[in-house]
Amino acid sequence: MSAKSHALATRQLRKRLGARVDTSKEGCWAASFDSSKISFLPEAVITPRAEKDIGPVLELANKHRVPVTVRGRGTTLMGSAAPVRGGWVIDMMKLKAVRIDADAGMAHVGAGATNAAVQRAAAAKGWFYPPDPSSKEYCTIGGNIACNAGGMHGGKYGVTRDFVISLRGFLPTGEFVEWGTATKKFAAGFNLRDLWIGSEGMLGVVTGAVLKLVPMPAARWTLLTAFADEVAAFKAAKALFRARVQPAICEFLDRESVLCAERATDKMVFPRQPFDWIQDRVVRPVILLELAGSLAEVDDLKLEVLAWAQSHTWAYKEAHSRAEVEELWEVRRKCSGAMFELGDSKLNEDIVVPMRNYEKFARFITQLKRQSKLPIPTFGHLADGNLHVNIMYHRDNPAETKAAEAAVQKLMEMVVSLGGAISGEHGIGLAKTPFLRLQHSPAQVRAMQAVKQALDPRGILNPGKMFSVVRIWKYPKLKLHLPWDHK
Amino acid sequence: MSAKSHALATRQLRKRLGARVDTSKEGCWAASFDSSKISFLPEAVITPRAEKDIGPVLELANKHRVPVTVRGRGTTLMGSAAPVRGGWVIDMMKLKAVRIDADAGMAHVGAGATNAAVQRAAAAKGWFYPPDPSSKEYCTIGGNIACNAGGMHGGKYGVTRDFVISLRGFLPTGEFVEWGTATKKFAAGFNLRDLWIGSEGMLGVVTGAVLKLVPMPAARWTLLTAFADEVAAFKAAKALFRARVQPAICEFLDRESVLCAERATDKMVFPRQPFDWIQDRVVRPVILLELAGSLAEVDDLKLEVLAWAQSHTWAYKEAHSRAEVEELWEVRRKCSGAMFELGDSKLNEDIVVPMRNYEKFARFITQLKRQSKLPIPTFGHLADGNLHVNIMYHRDNPAETKAAEAAVQKLMEMVVSLGGAISGEHGIGLAKTPFLRLQHSPAQVRAMQAVKQALDPRGILNPGKMFSVVRIWKYPKLKLHLPWDHK
Repeated sequence: MSAKSHALATRQLRKRLGARVDTSKEGCWAASFDSSKISFLPEAVITPRAEKDIGPVLELANKHRVPVTVRGRGTTLMGSAAPVRGGWVIDMMKLKAVRIDADAGMAHVGAGATNAAVQRAAAAKGWFYPPDPSSKEYCTIGGNIACNAGGMHGGKYGVTRDFVISLRGFLPTGEFVEWGTATKKFAAGFNLRDLWIGSEGMLGVVTGAVLKLVPMPAARWTLLTAFADEVAAFKAAKALFRARVQPAICEFLDRESVLCAERATDKMVFPRQPFDWIQDRVVRPVILLELAGSLAEVDDLKLEVLAWAQSHTWAYKEAHSRAEVEELWEVRRKCSGAMFELGDSKLNEDIVVPMRNYEKFARFITQLKRQSKLPIPTFGHLADGNLHVNIMYHRDNPAETKAAEAAVQKLMEMVVSLGGAISGEHGIGLAKTPFLRLQHSPAQVRAMQAVKQALDPRGILNPGKMFSVVRIWKYPKLKLHLPWDHK
Repeated sequence: MSAKSHALATRQLRKRLGARVDTSKEGCWAASFDSSKISFLPEAVITPRAEKDIGPVLELANKHRVPVTVRGRGTTLMGSAAPVRGGWVIDMMKLKAVRIDADAGMAHVGAGATNAAVQRAAAAKGWFYPPDPSSKEYCTIGGNIACNAGGMHGGKYGVTRDFVISLRGFLPTGEFVEWGTATKKFAAGFNLRDLWIGSEGMLGVVTGAVLKLVPMPAARWTLLTAFADEVAAFKAAKALFRARVQPAICEFLDRESVLCAERATDKMVFPRQPFDWIQDRVVRPVILLELAGSLAEVDDLKLEVLAWAQSHTWAYKEAHSRAEVEELWEVRRKCSGAMFELGDSKLNEDIVVPMRNYEKFARFITQLKRQSKLPIPTFGHLADGNLHVNIMYHRDNPAETKAAEAAVQKLMEMVVSLGGAISGEHGIGLAKTPFLRLQHSPAQVRAMQAVKQALDPRGILNPGKMFSVVRIWKYPKLKLHLPWDHK
């Protein structure tokens, strides 16, 4: 429990793993924070070269009650990878093997492989791995599994959970376990595979996974559509879904988000129509649609979508070349970074709203912007209701900070009252701990805590997350730029 | 703990729920067995009219430590719904509401709704619910969730777990809980939804679910193919999968299964070729393929599959009409029942083999048939490796019974050594308890038991299943015909 016992454990660890254990100031600092940029120094950083290095680490940690935080690339915004109680950090980046089984359509991957590495290896054999967090070039599969990451393809294809066939890793005792086999069916014993998915490293240590792949769509087709206002956009999207058209991508951007992109690119997403004198200078919310499938399938669907666009949109643009696709994507790619012109701080809330309440939610956000007097550009994945609500404020302005805090609280209450979720793909970590009990009843939280106690009785795995309430925005934030930062 | 305390609890229960509690001999007998046909008498059967009836039942049961077994239609072959420790049975058949959200592509269903009822309600609005156990006209969604049921569409579409968006139900304390929201993304707290799926009613009581639907495929196309032998069939299938063709259905039948179907229908599946004097009277293993998708998509894929059939099959037949589709399906529909001509008893093992080991497994089955001197017709879902190995024997013949027992043991050992699963869609129940520890290491079993202890500390939910070893084939079997029996 004590610093002395930790120091002893760290010495024993070094004896066993040698250079794989780093206690240097620089090493510990680099592992002290994730994208939330709140720093908590660990006592050592372990970089396993092989899976078998991990058992002994956990065995020692469990014996001496040393907190263990497992880390991939640390792209999470939630503080889930920050070693808030110190102890040891296990850095998984070296366990990055990727092997594609092209017959079975499966990827056998190490937890440290990046999402993009898996996507590329799959694509090279004609297969597709759909989950695609925006940090995909950096974030690891282990991290994706820890927070059940989603991305833009969630509506049609599903999220990380929908693509995990089996997991391998360790219990906090250091015992090796495998949940599931490399088969698409498995009904033998309790489903601890899925219990681990989204458990943010608090129930076990994932070292590898077998992932399901789907055939790479032969064709894609991109359409950018604009609407009179947000309610009209949501209504139109619902009409499309009701017709059972499932776009591979269906990204919504509200007017504020579009304005951000326009400022960043210094051009208008849709030219304002000069004859429309009232709306002349009015920016429009947009939906970026992408169809994917076989050539024949996409050709068919395209006609359906164009007919829908005719009757449901204010304007639309179809991409006829690769260059035009890139151009249509600009609004989506540039909106996030440009938001920092509206405030130096962002509370990026990845809430989820059930489709039946889209319009209500659009009205609520308009109201929230007005009441809080803050810019709240909102964009996200419309096919699954996972919207990113970005509350922008200046950290040094106490009134704005207070307004931002109040706005998040109101947002979360509204989302839950609409039957939605406080997080769709980021997880809880530290940042969402104040809202967990809005989502879950006391009985539900008790059941989760009982499971934690059962699988990690000494509480060594990623302690301090999920259940203890932390108001992360009150902590000092490191001023540094990470490669995957939008700004 | 005692009979006296149970009797007291039952009296209290009757006071609270009146006619919903049945202690009659007939009522208890009807709830005493499932499709395994091993009978264990409960003390009362509760038929809730509404979800809210269930909380008080569990509260009382938990207080008095009365075993509670939840039951849908009892179609499981594993004994999972048999009240092996007596106590109370909760019959969910009245909680059968089905509501389709046609915008979101979701079905809101009660646990007692049958699988087919959900499929039909979805189809009426153009949506498709793919999981389809062969007992789908009878089995309930609650039961499907309990054993993570699969069916013929598993390879392309997935199993029950892949379609459960959220669950509602009760902890053994009688506290109501909801796991997940009616949204396609959810990353807030531990994933107890998926922990409940496949937990065979041992961790909580499912009363309802929100299920994901997919657009109903506009077109289907059916092809029956035959092969020189089982190894050739498996190799050919792998070539198809490697080309990333994902048939909606890909049902394999070995020669013995085809013979059964031929006997039942009194006609040959493929006419023997008269000029091929060696193979003249040789029956062939077959694969029944069905493509599903948009008209354009199926038309495209069809050409690819026909080219494959030309080069990889011994013979093939395409269906050109609804009547011809039915004719091609006959071999698959009739094979199971006809197996009882080979023995009055069947050990139907729903094992799963990873694709890379298909050929090894085919050779093993041939050997197993030879060694055991038993008929072991084998058929199943080739796109996901979930094969039904049917060990046929005569129960009154001690030598055959012994051989059958030995064959199951060998089969399970082989499946695990090939990296497969002892159950793909039936679950463990009582029947597979002797093999659980082949699949799972002691550490894995301990972790599962710790979870059980955490969520059901008094052990009232479906006790006696999964972890205690029971050799179900040694119990006397009821002689009766159930509506969904193959024979």
